[in-house]
Amino acid sequence: MEEIKKEERTLKYHLKLRVYYEERNYGPGVAALMKLVREKGSLSAACQELHMAYSKAWKIINKAEEDLGLSLMEGRRGGEFGGTTVLTEEGEKFLNQYQAFAEEAEAAVEELFYKYFPE
Amino acid sequence: MEEIKKEERTLKYHLKLRVYYEERNYGPGVAALMKLVREKGSLSAACQELHMAYSKAWKIINKAEEDLGLSLMEGRRGGEFGGTTVLTEEGEKFLNQYQAFAEEAEAAVEELFYKYFPE
Repeated sequence: MEEIKKEERTLKYHLKLRVYYEERNYGPGVAALMKLVREKGSLSAACQELHMAYSKAWKIINKAEEDLGLSLMEGRRGGEFGGTTVLTEEGEKFLNQYQAFAEEAEAAVEELFYKYFPE
Repeated sequence: MEEIKKEERTLKYHLKLRVYYEERNYGPGVAALMKLVREKGSLSAACQELHMAYSKAWKIINKAEEDLGLSLMEGRRGGEFGGTTVLTEEGEKFLNQYQAFAEEAEAAVEELFYKYFPE
């Protein structure tokens, strides 16, 4: 059994992409939050889905905003918890660029992975 | 001055690649250690160059070896500090694969970065 299990193990790769000026703050975590905010209109709902503490979410969003010099999302009427959160226009644009970049990079890297690790 | 400085900031990307079975243990850190061990014949010299604690180096090497099911390096006569450390044959092979993969991935991702973030 042990040996069969061992042979079934599959070698994988993992790619992490960050886009930044000085500090590598914008990456997959903030992008995932932004995608969910766009979908759900709520940062707390996005946090729930990602099992991320609300305070941590704000922290990584603020650090990314600070480095990029962009406002990524904003609250609308009703306060942080009661109201909705939406992406800003520049946040939307940046997320779209990052997503397109990350998706095409993922495809390119996958191909290279099978080239160099053909097992 | 402030404004000039701001305009000079350049948007960059950072790519991190890991290769693994179950746990994402093998990545740029272990690869950098292995390259230096190959060059210097000494793990402690490699650690010095990377400003990495010897204990941390062993920890990340052991975790990578455990996940990959490979022995990446081995000590030769004279003990851990007195003797030399060399890459094993399978360690050498794996490092070469990872380096070739990472270099070509870096080139591909760089091109995509300028495509999606042409600023």
